[in-house]
Amino acid sequence: MKPSRIITLTTDFGECDPYVAMMKGVILSINPDATIIDVTHQIPARSIKEGGIIIKESYTYFPLGTVHVGVVDPGVGGTRRPIAMLADNYFFVGPDNGLFSIIIETQRHTDIIHLKEKRYWMHSISPTFHGRDIFAPVAAHLSLGVNPFRMGEKIDNPTLLASPLPHKNTSDLIGEIIRVDHFGNLITNITLDHLGPFLTSKDLIIKVGRLTLEKISTTYNDVPEGQPLALIGSSHLLEIAINMGRAIDYFGQDTVIGTKVQVSSLV
Amino acid sequence: MKPSRIITLTTDFGECDPYVAMMKGVILSINPDATIIDVTHQIPARSIKEGGIIIKESYTYFPLGTVHVGVVDPGVGGTRRPIAMLADNYFFVGPDNGLFSIIIETQRHTDIIHLKEKRYWMHSISPTFHGRDIFAPVAAHLSLGVNPFRMGEKIDNPTLLASPLPHKNTSDLIGEIIRVDHFGNLITNITLDHLGPFLTSKDLIIKVGRLTLEKISTTYNDVPEGQPLALIGSSHLLEIAINMGRAIDYFGQDTVIGTKVQVSSLV
Amino acid sequence: MKPSRIITLTTDFGECDPYVAMMKGVILSINPDATIIDVTHQIPARSIKEGGIIIKESYTYFPLGTVHVGVVDPGVGGTRRPIAMLADNYFFVGPDNGLFSIIIETQRHTDIIHLKEKRYWMHSISPTFHGRDIFAPVAAHLSLGVNPFRMGEKIDNPTLLASPLPHKNTSDLIGEIIRVDHFGNLITNITLDHLGPFLTSKDLIIKVGRLTLEKISTTYNDVPEGQPLALIGSSHLLEIAINMGRAIDYFGQDTVIGTKVQVSSLV
Repeated sequence: MKPSRIITLTTDFGECDPYVAMMKGVILSINPDATIIDVTHQIPARSIKEGGIIIKESYTYFPLGTVHVGVVDPGVGGTRRPIAMLADNYFFVGPDNGLFSIIIETQRHTDIIHLKEKRYWMHSISPTFHGRDIFAPVAAHLSLGVNPFRMGEKIDNPTLLASPLPHKNTSDLIGEIIRVDHFGNLITNITLDHLGPFLTSKDLIIKVGRLTLEKISTTYNDVPEGQPLALIGSSHLLEIAINMGRAIDYFGQDTVIGTKVQVSSLV
Repeated sequence: MKPSRIITLTTDFGECDPYVAMMKGVILSINPDATIIDVTHQIPARSIKEGGIIIKESYTYFPLGTVHVGVVDPGVGGTRRPIAMLADNYFFVGPDNGLFSIIIETQRHTDIIHLKEKRYWMHSISPTFHGRDIFAPVAAHLSLGVNPFRMGEKIDNPTLLASPLPHKNTSDLIGEIIRVDHFGNLITNITLDHLGPFLTSKDLIIKVGRLTLEKISTTYNDVPEGQPLALIGSSHLLEIAINMGRAIDYFGQDTVIGTKVQVSSLV
Repeated sequence: MKPSRIITLTTDFGECDPYVAMMKGVILSINPDATIIDVTHQIPARSIKEGGIIIKESYTYFPLGTVHVGVVDPGVGGTRRPIAMLADNYFFVGPDNGLFSIIIETQRHTDIIHLKEKRYWMHSISPTFHGRDIFAPVAAHLSLGVNPFRMGEKIDNPTLLASPLPHKNTSDLIGEIIRVDHFGNLITNITLDHLGPFLTSKDLIIKVGRLTLEKISTTYNDVPEGQPLALIGSSHLLEIAINMGRAIDYFGQDTVIGTKVQVSSLV
């Protein structure tokens, strides 16, 4: 796979500390022509699953051959393995703690390499910052075209986290809220594909907490200001929103990540 | 107009979601050599006017031919038009909802194009994310030198928002606070030009809420620590500040965006 | 010294205003090929010392010849001098207010230039924003290879702030907390070098507030979840942390920047 020269970073490091900049300095020291793009550094601290969701939502918008680095790494310095992965014509680099689980599960084929070759790392490895000392230099070398199979040993037992997938019974589709965005919209794990026949049903009912919605809207403005709606969001996921408002505030304590979302058809 | 290869982004997307990164991925997929600069993604949600003020304040500091993308777009997916604009030797791309109003009003000539040519867009257009699917690819094509007049039809009825301009009577100049910055400084809509003769007046009085100031200072340190002052800020706008403090906290509930600022001359 | 084409920015400007983008626009107008990296813009307002600590921690991770711009500048427009500095094979640009103090003190040799040549500045200088009008253009010119000694006059009396250095007595090493990071970890000013013989002591005791720790751990996971520990952080500084938690919350009001940290050996 030909690298795109682009490296993205998704971490839980926040914006106050020099940690992200250190990673960028390391990358540019190895590949001065790398284009580094921040996805976000606001993953909640140690929230591996949320980190994976963000990487999954965004990675395909980059040119093939982009190196996606993810660092949500509470087990840094312990026994968890550092890995590089080839999947869907992209590279991924980070800890083997389930961060890439959601990508591995949706791909027919992935090559996962347990990173072992120290010549692609920093000379000295801090036991608390593999992002800077292992993942950043490995990403930089990948962006220069180094063969990832030279960087370690292929493994076939990556750590997988149970991803919340929607389940179906005769008349219902049961999913859950997996993310709340900056606008307070509630993003679910129900995709267009899952909805399938429900999409054309004339007697659709969507239930979230105490709220019942009777159709899937196209845009936020399909309902009056301040009213709730369901729509297919920009990542093709069913989303609960308030026109000109914040759904998360509307539901309050009732609705959080993990809250059940039920789609039913009366017919 | 020759593009500068630089694309700036001003949005209300925040820093937590993957939305900004998706736009960058789309841009780099079309123009891998684009230099993408974030102006801010912290425009308050759906605050079109504040978005316009930030773009207006910053755009001239970039090389001519820079493409400035603004996405504060509460009407996305509805009837508001997507536009590209040529003004003051820069390109602007975003929704026709008044976001560029303040720029249109201060320019003698602008060319505004209603974007219609789908070959410059993403293949599939989400009704909730034109930033990614229309504005980002259009900006990338502009940065490559595509003629904007090929991207749609020229229009001459852009949406304009009433901008708060200061007004004068015989002895007074009445403006208002339009922005509060990170340091708590209160930025007004009164420019150096508006002040004109008041600047050299020996009996100047500036009133904001209960505060009366009797001169325009040059730097924050012209008054003792903790004391209020008025000065001409770095964007040539009259600004109310506290030396080593936060004016917004000093005024408290009395002073917000829209609060009247009166400049008078006793003579 | 050959410039690396990279310019880093460390400021207290926050993320909401257009100020950082203005600096980037100015830099790219002078050197369109500059690679600009944000270290952080979240230095607490006017906290010169904290700005210096962040620059010190991160600058060496960039290629030699990188230009590091620091703007924490409460005295802007007053008598404090604008400076450029050559130290440790890097360039530094910012106000002479002690921001680079911690770097000057740890280097045998530095060349410090009082910036005076206005041809390397913006044409018009705002008395409130030297970051944009002096430091950004000077950094851009340095990144293009302009000799800094042509930009002003060498000085040998830079402003130095008292840096908190640990002190030793017969059996103790007394340092302090200098920074709290995004994860709530408490970073001290005690380096590996300072620890020296204490590192191999079998009867080590570390005291912070009411807490006593009896060893230096290697990783966060060396203690059970929720338990406190001391370790050598990724910047080679002694750090107090909680496994899977926030040390700053654990200590609460007792522990802030400046809190004493005592390392003792019973033998």
